[in-house]
Amino acid sequence: MGDARRPIGIFDSGLGGLTVYKALRSLLPAEDLIYFGDTARVPYGTKSPEAVIAFSKEIAAFLLARRIKLLVVACNTASSLALEEIRRVSPVPVLGVIAPGVEAALAAAPRGGRVLVTGTTATVNSRAYSRALEAAGARVRVLEKACPLFVPIVEEGWCGKPVAAAVAREYLGPFRGRGIDALILGCTHYPLLKKVIARVMGPRTRIVDSAQAAAAQARRELERRGLLNPGRAGRSEFVVSDAPERFSLLARRLLGIKTGKVSVKRF
Amino acid sequence: MGDARRPIGIFDSGLGGLTVYKALRSLLPAEDLIYFGDTARVPYGTKSPEAVIAFSKEIAAFLLARRIKLLVVACNTASSLALEEIRRVSPVPVLGVIAPGVEAALAAAPRGGRVLVTGTTATVNSRAYSRALEAAGARVRVLEKACPLFVPIVEEGWCGKPVAAAVAREYLGPFRGRGIDALILGCTHYPLLKKVIARVMGPRTRIVDSAQAAAAQARRELERRGLLNPGRAGRSEFVVSDAPERFSLLARRLLGIKTGKVSVKRF
Repeated sequence: MGDARRPIGIFDSGLGGLTVYKALRSLLPAEDLIYFGDTARVPYGTKSPEAVIAFSKEIAAFLLARRIKLLVVACNTASSLALEEIRRVSPVPVLGVIAPGVEAALAAAPRGGRVLVTGTTATVNSRAYSRALEAAGARVRVLEKACPLFVPIVEEGWCGKPVAAAVAREYLGPFRGRGIDALILGCTHYPLLKKVIARVMGPRTRIVDSAQAAAAQARRELERRGLLNPGRAGRSEFVVSDAPERFSLLARRLLGIKTGKVSVKRF
Repeated sequence: MGDARRPIGIFDSGLGGLTVYKALRSLLPAEDLIYFGDTARVPYGTKSPEAVIAFSKEIAAFLLARRIKLLVVACNTASSLALEEIRRVSPVPVLGVIAPGVEAALAAAPRGGRVLVTGTTATVNSRAYSRALEAAGARVRVLEKACPLFVPIVEEGWCGKPVAAAVAREYLGPFRGRGIDALILGCTHYPLLKKVIARVMGPRTRIVDSAQAAAAQARRELERRGLLNPGRAGRSEFVVSDAPERFSLLARRLLGIKTGKVSVKRF
C-alpha cells in the first residue's frame, strides 16, 4: 500500500491516551488509527526510566510491524523518558505529548507571563514540562501542581459531579487570581476535566489541552510530508496488554468511544 | 535473647500498614516492632497472585532473619493471597488483617444482618472479605463497595477537609438507611477516614477497623503463647524498599508517627 494509506500508531500506558486518539479521530477522520494501551503494566509513572524505555520500545516495535506511518506517544511519562530512544529505532516520525503542549502554552503566555503545569505526581516530579519550557528558551515563570485525585475521579466517571469541582478548587483555587496565562493539562486524563478546571481558574487562563495540541501537530507533520490519507472513513483498531473488556467499558463510559472488539497482545 | 523479648514483624506493600503499626504500638507499648514497607513495588493490588506471593515470602524471610516472634501481614492484598504460603515457611505465627476484621464485623452484625465491605478495587474484586465471611459460616448479607479515591485522599492529607466528606457521601450515601450493621474498613488507609465514614453511615452502623482488630488479635496470640514482652518501652524500627524520605514524611504528616531514620532493604 502507498505510504499515505498506512495507519497512525498511538500508544499509552493505559486508557488516558484515548483523549489523544479522540482528538486525532476528529481532526483526521480519513486516517486509520491503531491504539495500543499497556494495561498490564499501567501505571508507568512509578516505574524506573529503564523499565519505561524498555516497555516503550517493545510497543513501538509492535506498532512498527503493523507498518504505521507515524507514531504518537500519547503518554506523558513515556514522552518524557523514552522519546529519544524510540526515535533512534523508528524509521517513521515519532511525536510525544509534551512538546506540543509546551508550544501551545507559549503561544498563550506572553514573555514574563506565567504557566501552570498540572499532572500526576510522577509527571510533576519529573519536571518534564518545566525542562521543555526552559529548553524552548521561554521567558515565562513556570509553576507546577500535582493533582493525584484527578485520574481516579475521571476513572470513576465523576467529571460532572460537584465533588470534581470541589477537588479542582482544592488543588487550583490558590492559583486563581495569580496571573496564570496558561494552564497545561499535563496528563492525558485531564482533558475530561477541562471545563471544571477552566471554571476554577477563571477566564484569564488559557487551558492547554496536550491531547488537542498533539493531534494538531500530527496533522501538520503528515501534511508537511505529504502523508495525509486521501481516503474517506478511517478505521480504528484497539489493542491492549490486559483486561480488554474493562478497557472497552471505560472507553465508552468516559469518552463515548465505541471500540468494537479489543484485541490482546501480551509481552 | 528469650523468645518473649524478640520483636514483632509487620509488613505492608507501602505505608498503609502504619495504621496497624500504630494500633500495635498503642496496645502493646512494651513490644519491639519492625515495620517493612515494600515501597519499591507498591501497589500490590494490581499485581498477579504469583508476584504477591513471591514478594511476601521474600519479606517474610527478611523479617524472620531478624528473629521476630510474630509476623503481622498488614496488607489486605497479601493477607488475601499469600497468608497460607507464608505460614508454610514461617516457624512463628502469622496473622493477617482479613480474619480479625471479619470476626469483629460478625460480632457487630446479628444473624440475618448486613455487612458492607469497603476497600480498593483490587480488594473488592478479590472478594477476600466476602469469602472469609462465607467461610465463617456467617448468616449475614454481604454488600461490597470499592472506594478508589479514599487512598489518594488520605495520602494528600485531606481527611479533615470537606472534599473527603463529599467523596465519602458519593460512595457511601446510597448505603445509609439500608440497615447496614457493620462496615469493614477493608484497606489499611481507611482508618484515617473513620470519622468521616461514620458520619455518612449514621449511628446504626458499627465501623470495623481491621487495623485495630488485627492488633487486638496479635495481643491475644502473644498472651496465649506466653510471649508478651515483659520489658517497658518497646523500640520501633522502619525499613522500606525505596524512597525512605517520602515514607518518613508521610508517616509523620498522616499518622503523626516519628520514624527516626528509615533504612532501605532492596530485593
